Amino acid sequence: MPTSLLQSIDSPTDLRKLPESDLPKLADELRQFIIQTVSKTGGHLGAGLGVVDLTIALHYIFNTPDDRLVWDVGHQCYPHKALTGRRDQLHTLRQKDGVSGFTKRSESIYDPFGAGHSSTSISAALGMAAAARKQKSGNKAIAVIGDGAMTAGMAFEALNNAGHDRRNDLVVVLNDNEMSISPNVGALSSYLSKILSGDAYNQIKTGAGTVLERLSPTLLDAARRAEEHMKGMLIPGTLFEELGFTYFGPIDGHDYQQLLPTLRNIKRLTRPILLHVVTHKGKGFAPAEDNPCTYHGVSPFDPDTGVMQKSAGGPPSYTKVFSDGLIELAASNPKIVAITAAMMEGTGLSAFQKRFPERFHDVGIAEQHAVTFAGGMAAEGEIPVCAIYSTFFQRAYDQFVHDVALQNLPVIFALDRAGLVGADGPTHAGAYDLSFLRAIPNTTIMAPSDENELRRMLATAAKLGKPAVIRYPRGNALGLELEPMTPIPVGSARQLRDGADAAILAVGEHAHAALAAANTLADEGINCAVYDARFIKPLDAAMVRAAAKTGTILTVEENAVMGGFGSAVLEKLSEEGLLAGGVRFRSLGIPDRFIPQGSQKELRAELGLDAEGIAAAMRALRA
Amino acid sequence: MPTSLLQSIDSPTDLRKLPESDLPKLADELRQFIIQTVSKTGGHLGAGLGVVDLTIALHYIFNTPDDRLVWDVGHQCYPHKALTGRRDQLHTLRQKDGVSGFTKRSESIYDPFGAGHSSTSISAALGMAAAARKQKSGNKAIAVIGDGAMTAGMAFEALNNAGHDRRNDLVVVLNDNEMSISPNVGALSSYLSKILSGDAYNQIKTGAGTVLERLSPTLLDAARRAEEHMKGMLIPGTLFEELGFTYFGPIDGHDYQQLLPTLRNIKRLTRPILLHVVTHKGKGFAPAEDNPCTYHGVSPFDPDTGVMQKSAGGPPSYTKVFSDGLIELAASNPKIVAITAAMMEGTGLSAFQKRFPERFHDVGIAEQHAVTFAGGMAAEGEIPVCAIYSTFFQRAYDQFVHDVALQNLPVIFALDRAGLVGADGPTHAGAYDLSFLRAIPNTTIMAPSDENELRRMLATAAKLGKPAVIRYPRGNALGLELEPMTPIPVGSARQLRDGADAAILAVGEHAHAALAAANTLADEGINCAVYDARFIKPLDAAMVRAAAKTGTILTVEENAVMGGFGSAVLEKLSEEGLLAGGVRFRSLGIPDRFIPQGSQKELRAELGLDAEGIAAAMRALRA
Repeated sequence: MPTSLLQSIDSPTDLRKLPESDLPKLADELRQFIIQTVSKTGGHLGAGLGVVDLTIALHYIFNTPDDRLVWDVGHQCYPHKALTGRRDQLHTLRQKDGVSGFTKRSESIYDPFGAGHSSTSISAALGMAAAARKQKSGNKAIAVIGDGAMTAGMAFEALNNAGHDRRNDLVVVLNDNEMSISPNVGALSSYLSKILSGDAYNQIKTGAGTVLERLSPTLLDAARRAEEHMKGMLIPGTLFEELGFTYFGPIDGHDYQQLLPTLRNIKRLTRPILLHVVTHKGKGFAPAEDNPCTYHGVSPFDPDTGVMQKSAGGPPSYTKVFSDGLIELAASNPKIVAITAAMMEGTGLSAFQKRFPERFHDVGIAEQHAVTFAGGMAAEGEIPVCAIYSTFFQRAYDQFVHDVALQNLPVIFALDRAGLVGADGPTHAGAYDLSFLRAIPNTTIMAPSDENELRRMLATAAKLGKPAVIRYPRGNALGLELEPMTPIPVGSARQLRDGADAAILAVGEHAHAALAAANTLADEGINCAVYDARFIKPLDAAMVRAAAKTGTILTVEENAVMGGFGSAVLEKLSEEGLLAGGVRFRSLGIPDRFIPQGSQKELRAELGLDAEGIAAAMRALRA
Repeated sequence: MPTSLLQSIDSPTDLRKLPESDLPKLADELRQFIIQTVSKTGGHLGAGLGVVDLTIALHYIFNTPDDRLVWDVGHQCYPHKALTGRRDQLHTLRQKDGVSGFTKRSESIYDPFGAGHSSTSISAALGMAAAARKQKSGNKAIAVIGDGAMTAGMAFEALNNAGHDRRNDLVVVLNDNEMSISPNVGALSSYLSKILSGDAYNQIKTGAGTVLERLSPTLLDAARRAEEHMKGMLIPGTLFEELGFTYFGPIDGHDYQQLLPTLRNIKRLTRPILLHVVTHKGKGFAPAEDNPCTYHGVSPFDPDTGVMQKSAGGPPSYTKVFSDGLIELAASNPKIVAITAAMMEGTGLSAFQKRFPERFHDVGIAEQHAVTFAGGMAAEGEIPVCAIYSTFFQRAYDQFVHDVALQNLPVIFALDRAGLVGADGPTHAGAYDLSFLRAIPNTTIMAPSDENELRRMLATAAKLGKPAVIRYPRGNALGLELEPMTPIPVGSARQLRDGADAAILAVGEHAHAALAAANTLADEGINCAVYDARFIKPLDAAMVRAAAKTGTILTVEENAVMGGFGSAVLEKLSEEGLLAGGVRFRSLGIPDRFIPQGSQKELRAELGLDAEGIAAAMRALRA
């Protein structure tokens, strides 16, 4: 498309040369480009399509990169990337060595802050605004945040801090699509819906009034509004006004006649501003408009029909195994309740929600609250199961320590996506859970090596009566026939292979890679014992003693080597006095750097975390 | 005082037998009891005095312990403890084996949830309300939370979740004393102040109206209020109403004529309720009323005059050394800015604030926001220094990982109160920072063994250009003469003593205890080398190699042994291939249990973390 508008734009400077009248056409082209690109690469589709017009308008009015544009979460940034010099690289999206699926400082000067987890944008932009004031640079700071992300506590912390000082030259664009990843929950969401169902927004939509007219109400108007207020129909934005922000909106985020003049007005002001923009997730691609959840994150699809490539099939994912197992357990144990922080689909809890709606709690994007809420339920004798991705669990560390572990309450944490996660990259890797959880007293930590182990660990956790963590990876399980959910004796590893020359102690599925490596090594005359550790804490001392007898120990885990399972084994060797006799030891895991995106297979091969790598490490250790 | 009312109350059941007219007298006695007790034990004074009437009223109206009363933070719970069977033990407050200074489940059935860190109460109480609904128990759940604690994100997350469903039978008592530990900051605080300065509250105070009258406004009233609203004078509680809560208040929290009828009304309702109560911190003790900050936490004092016992004097605290050092550094480096999360006094930043008001940021009780805000400033070329207690830093773990470490931004974290903290007990111990931070790439972690080392580490961090953490203990430094702030080569330990028989590698001040132990051991013919590790990450490989040569290594740290410094040394021994030859190794640190309150000296002796314990551990290791 050499004659297209989009092809002519290598940076926002080019964009700003276009006449306003060209912007809708550019938007159409950009939408098509995003659809075509993501249909091949997969990735986040609906969020980006929803903000195409907003992206164009922001770059058109504001002076990026000097004005700092911070996208919350970052998964809606593909249009932004296409307009900021990365159009021709976008086909490498989310692939190894390719363009990141999120904003990333090292990728472009137009990405002033990296993202990946939600709700950080206002804090970061406020920091930039504070720096701009100190440096007298005059640069604006703009955060674009979704209505879902706005429910997380840190967004509120930032609003509370920002609104307090009128010198904060900060624009918060609330991108209201009534949808985060799942439909939104919580009072804020109801509040925003009420605004949109109210007179003010409908007047705008029908052209009966403008935003600015509404800012000078007569007393009569005020009386009418007060009456509405009493009936529960709100003056738009009161909540934000009360937090010190000047509120604009709601405006239609696909209408340049509203977007451009409003942004121009806002640009002139230097104080905390909240602009409420209404957009449609998936805008311009019918399948995504109709099914925003399905098209939030997609595998490659047919750009004409939206039909996604069937996944290769194969065994059920660990997420599905967890989902089914939890329902099975809950059917016979009425104390079990399930909690998610706005990830009902991703964590597999939607089936539980359908089966036991009264025992299911979606608390919003609010991991901190989720964990303490679980603690409160556990204090009353319930057995809450919090299903949270490992990476998001970092958000609730203190709550885990204080509100669960210190009080020794029987909350079960199902940490999905532990280890490397593939295309989402380092912001979503669950690379540290073993390190940060292992240090906490009263904590039992398990990792299943297959689906039956996951089922048994769930049963084990439900009987434990104290905090339990089960961490399992992204991806498919092995496809084993399901066995009964028999609890496992706490702290007992299982030996997969005998061998007197060396021992490989592995966590999770890597036990199978270790077994494969041991079989290869056996052909070379090296006889390795292989253990599936099962419990990272408490660690099986008998396993460690048996391993020490071989004189050579290799540990394997998909967690940071620092402080992880390997360190636990070293600690146990020391505790048992087994280091004095000498032992060859190596710990395989995630090295001390952030691991870029790439498929799990690619990354495991690169880091030596597959059978070949394990065998090579063992050879080196014995050399 | 055998004839006193207070002496007759061994549980809230006794309290509920009193006539209403006796409650003010009981309150007076309870205040005197708290003043007398805390004058001997020290502890938190002002917060408890402020809620004496509220405590009495809540237990009087609600059916505790069946109705669950959750105190946020818990440092205001002494009156609650005195009324719930712990009056005669309160003289052991905050002492080893004594009554905890916070709520604690294992201490009483009247403490349904433990506290210590702020802003957890609404989440926990909502969990209890959810359990009560599931169990059809009819028990109420009541959270009492201060206006300061309300600024933390997780309180908002809980409000957002609770207000969404009218079936949530939850009472949130907002205890508004316009004061957390330092004067409050943020838009929410301004909002609450505006409510209190408005007509509604003043009418109540002058007796011109009642709360309930205000709930049925005429249209005229509404018009007047709308007008006020436009002028910025708000209808009380709009913000909470918009989050789905039914708002009552503000009422005077020292007036039983307002407290009792309002609580009775509220008790009948089963929906999310926010009761806004205004109290005076330190109420009933003039010195504390006049100086709420000073009397928030106190050492023993004269109950007549309020004059506190002088501290033993001695060297400046590490907090003071940090404070002075940072100012010295900032005077010559204009990029340095300082950030606190509502702990300006505790972290020693008040001096910085006075000296560089424009370079100082108090962001409220909002550790998550503080860290990402710092990341935003660092992205703009500033060098932010975040001073946060180690225990509170757990709140911002994910933000540290994503918004600082992953982006390799030069934020300096000054983690005060690392290690055991004494009377505050396990909720305030900084026992895990080395474990949870060490696993994160791009992170440099230092611990000073004396005040000059702290100063030098600050200088080192300021030049580093990447994330730096300095952790230092509660308490006094050594009293050394101050030396220039010369940076230390990154990753270099310092040897304090030579010795060929064994090596002791220590973190922080324990290096001196190790030296003392080594001197004792030398008299017994055991010659130990002693190292002050300085850097937990990157670890000095030369130190580890030298230590390995002795064949016997003892590590000492005031952090969990799991995943801490000792594990780092083990990992390095493995990495360097030094385990094969055999080494006697032991890691001294905080064992795998939560350590109860007690003085630092007592606890260190108990855990073997003093010179005697270190010497004993070395003898045992060589045995």
